[in-house]
Amino acid sequence: MADSLDALIARVNAFVTERDWAQFHSPKNLAMAMIVEAGEVVEHFQWMTEDESRNLDTETREQVGQELSDTLVYLLRIAEVCGIDLIEAANKKIDLNAQKYPVDKCKGSNAKYSAYE
Amino acid sequence: MADSLDALIARVNAFVTERDWAQFHSPKNLAMAMIVEAGEVVEHFQWMTEDESRNLDTETREQVGQELSDTLVYLLRIAEVCGIDLIEAANKKIDLNAQKYPVDKCKGSNAKYSAYE
Amino acid sequence: MADSLDALIARVNAFVTERDWAQFHSPKNLAMAMIVEAGEVVEHFQWMTEDESRNLDTETREQVGQELSDTLVYLLRIAEVCGIDLIEAANKKIDLNAQKYPVDKCKGSNAKYSAYE
Amino acid sequence: MADSLDALIARVNAFVTERDWAQFHSPKNLAMAMIVEAGEVVEHFQWMTEDESRNLDTETREQVGQELSDTLVYLLRIAEVCGIDLIEAANKKIDLNAQKYPVDKCKGSNAKYSAYE
Repeated sequence: MADSLDALIARVNAFVTERDWAQFHSPKNLAMAMIVEAGEVVEHFQWMTEDESRNLDTETREQVGQELSDTLVYLLRIAEVCGIDLIEAANKKIDLNAQKYPVDKCKGSNAKYSAYE
Repeated sequence: MADSLDALIARVNAFVTERDWAQFHSPKNLAMAMIVEAGEVVEHFQWMTEDESRNLDTETREQVGQELSDTLVYLLRIAEVCGIDLIEAANKKIDLNAQKYPVDKCKGSNAKYSAYE
Repeated sequence: MADSLDALIARVNAFVTERDWAQFHSPKNLAMAMIVEAGEVVEHFQWMTEDESRNLDTETREQVGQELSDTLVYLLRIAEVCGIDLIEAANKKIDLNAQKYPVDKCKGSNAKYSAYE
Repeated sequence: MADSLDALIARVNAFVTERDWAQFHSPKNLAMAMIVEAGEVVEHFQWMTEDESRNLDTETREQVGQELSDTLVYLLRIAEVCGIDLIEAANKKIDLNAQKYPVDKCKGSNAKYSAYE
């Protein structure tokens, strides 16, 4: 059981190596696999109202957790194969987002950031 | 700067709260936002060969890192709003995958697991 | 101006041939391009309520029409390259769907068809 | 059997009306359903090489045709619900694309159009 992100990444990479699957894991293929899994997340919510999506029953939450996990695994693999430090990249991206969406201009609004420029 | 996944999750949640955006963050909406970002990852690779995707120039790798980060942020938000512990869920899913794809049967093969059942 | 689907398909194919782009149009690449465009459709709706999505302003409807068009063009190209007659395939699929979703069992319900089996 | 696009659209709309499903067919929901089906198209190709995707066996081509059909049906429904004439919209979009990608500048190149501006 991997109790942190680093441990999870190591476990995922070992899973791939044991099966000799790195040969199939080009970023191109992995991006396809990631969006397929993201589609399986979306499928759970497509006919729900927003309220229903906020109140999942236990079984559906379990299933959503599985599809999110598959999406995450491919996301981690893309980062690995491309040599991207995901925690560092995400922090840099949030820095950029904080500039694009200043609190005083976009509080409580869902307008796209271009509306603030 | 958040130096771990827990710190990143806390930072993302604070970002949303400061902007009063939780009202828009139903799992339904977040799943849409996540797949839109996953599509922006795919866009980088759609006309590349697999080999090209394995050898990104610095600028493209930077951009892919940004799109992966956006995808991750929405993925973390879905888990947060649904009350899913992502590290735990991912470990459980890998346990399941290890049963579906036994090493001795699928080593070096890209066949879908149903072929092994 | 192509005034029917056949004319549109012929126009799209000519567009590709003139630019010598068929070499990039493997079904794999085209499927990626199609889902990227589908993501641009989704992006328009991700923060809207369902009611808002039913009442688009003129500019947004125009933009949605452009993204739907791009999605359709890649869909037509996949069918072309794979040798699939799309009108025939769609009619056969609707025949199957009519069996999966009998009117008397699923009228007014959004339950997935597996619930009827 | 609908032998043209107009007949197919009429058939799809009748299918929805008979089941009283229009209530679920907001553009927001339909966009989600469309990208889910597009994901099922992508899934067929994710581990194939480009060459393999150009040489599908009969069974896989049949399955791809089914997923393309589902994608098309939701695409047609979005256009219907939004009041978009898809053939007209697609022709206008190809006019725009012809300006963005002039033959003399992009023949044989897969560079994104922004490279030509």
